Amino acid sequence: MSTIIGHNYIGGQRSAAGKVIVRSIDANTGENLPYSFYQATLEEVDSAALAAASAFPTYRNLSAARRAEFLDAIADELDTLGDDFVALVCRETALPAVRIQGERGRTSGQMRLFAKVLRRGDFYGARIDLALPERKPLPRPDLRQYRIGLGPVAVFGASNFPLAFSTAGGDSAAALAAGCPVVFKAHSGHMATAEYVANAIITAAERTGMPAGVFNMIYGAGVGEALVKHPAIQAVGFTGSLKGGRALCDMAAARPQPIPVFAEMSSVNPVVVLPQALNVRADSIANELCASVVQGCGQFCTNPGLVLGIRSTNFSAFQQRLAALINDQPAQTMLNPGTLGSYGKGLQKLHSHPAIEHLAGGTQQGSQAQPQLFKADVNLLLKGDEVLQEEVFGPTTVIVEVADQTQLHAALNGLQGQLTATLIGEPGDFAQFSELTALLEQKVGRILLNGYPTGVEVCDSMVHGGPYPATSDARGTSVGTLAIDRFLRPVCFQNFPDSLLPDALKDANPLGISRLVDGQAVRDSL
Amino acid sequence: MSTIIGHNYIGGQRSAAGKVIVRSIDANTGENLPYSFYQATLEEVDSAALAAASAFPTYRNLSAARRAEFLDAIADELDTLGDDFVALVCRETALPAVRIQGERGRTSGQMRLFAKVLRRGDFYGARIDLALPERKPLPRPDLRQYRIGLGPVAVFGASNFPLAFSTAGGDSAAALAAGCPVVFKAHSGHMATAEYVANAIITAAERTGMPAGVFNMIYGAGVGEALVKHPAIQAVGFTGSLKGGRALCDMAAARPQPIPVFAEMSSVNPVVVLPQALNVRADSIANELCASVVQGCGQFCTNPGLVLGIRSTNFSAFQQRLAALINDQPAQTMLNPGTLGSYGKGLQKLHSHPAIEHLAGGTQQGSQAQPQLFKADVNLLLKGDEVLQEEVFGPTTVIVEVADQTQLHAALNGLQGQLTATLIGEPGDFAQFSELTALLEQKVGRILLNGYPTGVEVCDSMVHGGPYPATSDARGTSVGTLAIDRFLRPVCFQNFPDSLLPDALKDANPLGISRLVDGQAVRDSL
Repeated sequence: MSTIIGHNYIGGQRSAAGKVIVRSIDANTGENLPYSFYQATLEEVDSAALAAASAFPTYRNLSAARRAEFLDAIADELDTLGDDFVALVCRETALPAVRIQGERGRTSGQMRLFAKVLRRGDFYGARIDLALPERKPLPRPDLRQYRIGLGPVAVFGASNFPLAFSTAGGDSAAALAAGCPVVFKAHSGHMATAEYVANAIITAAERTGMPAGVFNMIYGAGVGEALVKHPAIQAVGFTGSLKGGRALCDMAAARPQPIPVFAEMSSVNPVVVLPQALNVRADSIANELCASVVQGCGQFCTNPGLVLGIRSTNFSAFQQRLAALINDQPAQTMLNPGTLGSYGKGLQKLHSHPAIEHLAGGTQQGSQAQPQLFKADVNLLLKGDEVLQEEVFGPTTVIVEVADQTQLHAALNGLQGQLTATLIGEPGDFAQFSELTALLEQKVGRILLNGYPTGVEVCDSMVHGGPYPATSDARGTSVGTLAIDRFLRPVCFQNFPDSLLPDALKDANPLGISRLVDGQAVRDSL
Repeated sequence: MSTIIGHNYIGGQRSAAGKVIVRSIDANTGENLPYSFYQATLEEVDSAALAAASAFPTYRNLSAARRAEFLDAIADELDTLGDDFVALVCRETALPAVRIQGERGRTSGQMRLFAKVLRRGDFYGARIDLALPERKPLPRPDLRQYRIGLGPVAVFGASNFPLAFSTAGGDSAAALAAGCPVVFKAHSGHMATAEYVANAIITAAERTGMPAGVFNMIYGAGVGEALVKHPAIQAVGFTGSLKGGRALCDMAAARPQPIPVFAEMSSVNPVVVLPQALNVRADSIANELCASVVQGCGQFCTNPGLVLGIRSTNFSAFQQRLAALINDQPAQTMLNPGTLGSYGKGLQKLHSHPAIEHLAGGTQQGSQAQPQLFKADVNLLLKGDEVLQEEVFGPTTVIVEVADQTQLHAALNGLQGQLTATLIGEPGDFAQFSELTALLEQKVGRILLNGYPTGVEVCDSMVHGGPYPATSDARGTSVGTLAIDRFLRPVCFQNFPDSLLPDALKDANPLGISRLVDGQAVRDSL
């Protein structure tokens, strides 16, 4: 196991110019871990951004196959991180070892999936319109388009996925795949973990001959603002709170050159339990839903925070069953004291609202999070009250009972943008409520039938995104291969000789990729 | 010829609730045309946005083939606009009839091209990952992704393309193709033209059974702010000045729900004239370049505003030749008095700068724009002076002489983002300056070899975009079929039965589109 020295990673070197020391904390005990990290100075933030900018021309011009080698090498390095590493992550996050082992595999698998995307070549979006020299009244020139990386990307990782959404997580993987060097702001909740992962990335970069500065990492509080405002940074990836994400968006929009921010923020992930499903399997739904609410102490972006159903004896019984289950759930340790504090405040907001009733869950106190169940008046959704719109991050959910199908629509329409929405139903339900799909499409990034939103598959078809405030830009996803699109932009070549064109656009199609040629998708050479 | 009544277009009705009357002006005489337009009241802006929102659920759920019918019908209606219409556009814009006739064809052709895109189906971005029920440790659910429209789009047209970038122009076509209803802010420079075109769109909408509110148009000054801030509006397309575009971006970013703005703003479109080309064809380059500078009174986003060359006797002779040509060019009438005023101010800025020399062009005065040639010290680019960065919209260009290849790089690196860059050279030049392509790729949306940037082909491969300040978001293009991407977002369906999936994602692939299935592009059914 390598030594944790807590120096910033800048241009392939380590740097500890600052005087401010930040500490990593044992999430279970609240005690300092024996590691010190040097908060980056403003000069170091500048150097990290410039190192990324300096790497950009070389890195983006490497073939996609070479970048794929780099991602595969990162994956291999991540896989070699052993039990001692897992134990360390568990100490910093209070997450169980089996979860971290799974997440390690998910993170390396994600890197390898982006390597596949690079080799597949559809990310280029290659398009060719051949010259029409005889066209009247004007000839058409030869025009060819592909996509290149935007430039250096600043990434802010999540606390709740210390591997898969953090240092070498989805945003970093997508940016690196796109040809964009990364400056990563280490999450204060798992800085020792971040150091191990950064070492893995740097080792992979050196092993595969990547330019120094392809990956940089800085420690500390308050360094994010300087990073986002740095002229060299061309895009931002963020996973975290609505407040934090919106602050970054506002900063980025106010720059002399505004840049895009892809922030995954707040989602209450409504689950609609339909009548016939309640008829035939209310108890199993209650069991599954309860498991989804408390899984990982509810610390998922896709945690189901709202459960909607139509008033009926079945739905009343379902609520009682769910309340009993929630009362049986043990308290769990959260990722860090800040998360626990936010959970407490979020619960307090629900407890103190006159139109919200507490149905189940022990008093929230001490050092762990107590699962909770609430019930809210549907008028909160119908009349645009904010209280149900922002997620309470942790093991809690809120039931909303509606009068009928019409009110169900109105309640769903009252929701702001979401990462997910879920319909639990039988075939007869889906026939009766067939219009819900189109309604929910306008609200969310992913609609599930008879599943639970926790558990986000990393694949080509995944959308982990959605309208504001779920994310800052509904056109992106932060999970799955489409995430690469956020960091690419198109460039067109007019009247270029073959020798000067990038391989993706050469006549012979040396990469063997699919291209849109005169409006037809073909893999052939021209 | 239909009567121009100057009422706003709201939800398929005409509305004239306001008291403020705005007038259209004869661009040649400066006199009022005999048409009155009713500036939209704030209530009318609200109604227009709500009409678009109300049309959205129906419109976006129409099949792509139905939307294609609508676009084709708009194209047919545009083609029937006859000589009286052309004469009217000419009166409002001072553009010649042959140009307007060409632009009419370009505009209807653009609509038909987007109809083709809708029928082709690649805009769906359909992706399918089939369920893997036996996968360990966890099964994979069935996941399918396609793209849907963002919602109502506000469009602000350009003055310089009263048809192709205006009411039924590229932004409107792309938004309507994407399934997004449009609220169009009629350009004050050609409101009568806008009324004719809006009538064509409304006729097409009625003829093809589109929902009322699919297209709305409002007149007046100052209505744009209320439109961009309206909660129903989900994206903005804009073509115009840096100041205007940036103001819209700032408004959109400050909304409770920020929305994307695709603003095409300011570009000086550098042209690099390489040494061997000057050796063999300096005079023809000077002729072509001069023609590109003064074409359409220089009123093109892609007008070449900067000409770079390496110091030599040939380049000196070229400058003299270009100066002589510019001195021979007649003054031309601009689109409107505002444009002429801005041109005058832009010239004054160049005249008064101590590091810029005036090489050719008669004194700017009177009611027409006089073509001009300037020469600027390369240090303005090397040291980040703002004076050369923002375009002077009109028939003028600035020569920058560099010492050598190294200084050429530095000068190009000193440029902000551009729509285009052009290299004029012989094969030997491209061998010697082969690194310029990679350098310019980072600066621009389109690189041309031995062409001139005026003239933007509408096709799949075109990029009319580029880094800030050329546009507000380098990831988009406002010309060409990729423009549809700006108004689409992905949605994922998890574990959906075939009957509830959209056609684009059904097993049988009833649309016959190409889809990425388990990482392979296929057109087959599953």
